Amino acid sequence: MTRTGRRPGAGGTREKILAAARSDFGKGGYETATIRGIAARAGVDPALVLHYFGSKEGIFRAAIEMTIEPAQFLPRLLAPGLDGLGERLVRFFLDTWDAPEGSPFLALISSVVTNEDAATQMREFVTEEVLGRLARALELDQPRLRASLVASQLVGLAMLRYVVKVEPLASASATDVATLLGPTLQRYLADPTATILKVD
Amino acid sequence: MTRTGRRPGAGGTREKILAAARSDFGKGGYETATIRGIAARAGVDPALVLHYFGSKEGIFRAAIEMTIEPAQFLPRLLAPGLDGLGERLVRFFLDTWDAPEGSPFLALISSVVTNEDAATQMREFVTEEVLGRLARALELDQPRLRASLVASQLVGLAMLRYVVKVEPLASASATDVATLLGPTLQRYLADPTATILKVD
Repeated sequence: MTRTGRRPGAGGTREKILAAARSDFGKGGYETATIRGIAARAGVDPALVLHYFGSKEGIFRAAIEMTIEPAQFLPRLLAPGLDGLGERLVRFFLDTWDAPEGSPFLALISSVVTNEDAATQMREFVTEEVLGRLARALELDQPRLRASLVASQLVGLAMLRYVVKVEPLASASATDVATLLGPTLQRYLADPTATILKVD
Repeated sequence: MTRTGRRPGAGGTREKILAAARSDFGKGGYETATIRGIAARAGVDPALVLHYFGSKEGIFRAAIEMTIEPAQFLPRLLAPGLDGLGERLVRFFLDTWDAPEGSPFLALISSVVTNEDAATQMREFVTEEVLGRLARALELDQPRLRASLVASQLVGLAMLRYVVKVEPLASASATDVATLLGPTLQRYLADPTATILKVD
């Protein structure tokens, strides 16, 4: 789930293709995206896409690779303490998803129904990367349950805001959305009464 | 979004095909489901599926038609008052989604990425049916914002529990999930401070 840094010299073209792939996978999911469409969006020849990534599956795997490094951003989110963490977390994800180079996570969400790789990656993301790390860093009880509750709200937000585009959530500012959903994540992460299941 | 009641005499076969369609659309979304696959699951000839529904699009439209009647269940949910409404709401949706005849809503969620009809139906469901009615019945301020917040949590729950299958949410009992997520929906519906956007 980290940057591979492969072919650093050809970064520009490779990144342009990846951004186009994230956009296409994010819009129509794995099944409907095509090498030809991705190449057209990136303004390159389809043969070049195959040269870099080998196949549609290859470019999908690279497109959903997370470009964010938990080791880098987690300390920044946690530094001010547990207070307001829910709000900072929503804000952080919105900033990531709204990034101009396209979001691996939105490509992942849109493909999760038709592609088993995407479903596995999403499960791993929820239980291990980011949310699992966060729950462990805070030494919370029942980290898996808390991470899955947080993820349920974040995934639903991404679906409504970017995929189904339901107003007013689709057009609300990141700050407003963070204010609205922050207390929910705060409760899932920090409230001892929020978790009654004994599962971890 | 209501039962059409078409061909009441042929209800058994038609319903069997619809249940198979909901299952296939719910598992792989609109793009990957086929008339042939749905027919095989229902144990009928593909020609019979076409006879009843005309096309893949036709059976999809019928499969995502909501079989629940807001006029029937809303009064029951609202009868005990606003207290605990969030928990009753989560419980109600889980019971609907877990129904043995398959859920139109899960077929809808799984198809929302690749099918514009599904996205439109989902927007309508969120803003008008069920959640919009609920917000109006309670005479809440900002009903559209509240409905979209509630929907973001419910859609995320459905994604994690049924599509991505993240534990422990996937296997938790309906009662436990209702206890965990109830307070979130309660806040979105009833807390005046939960909505700071002036959008409705």
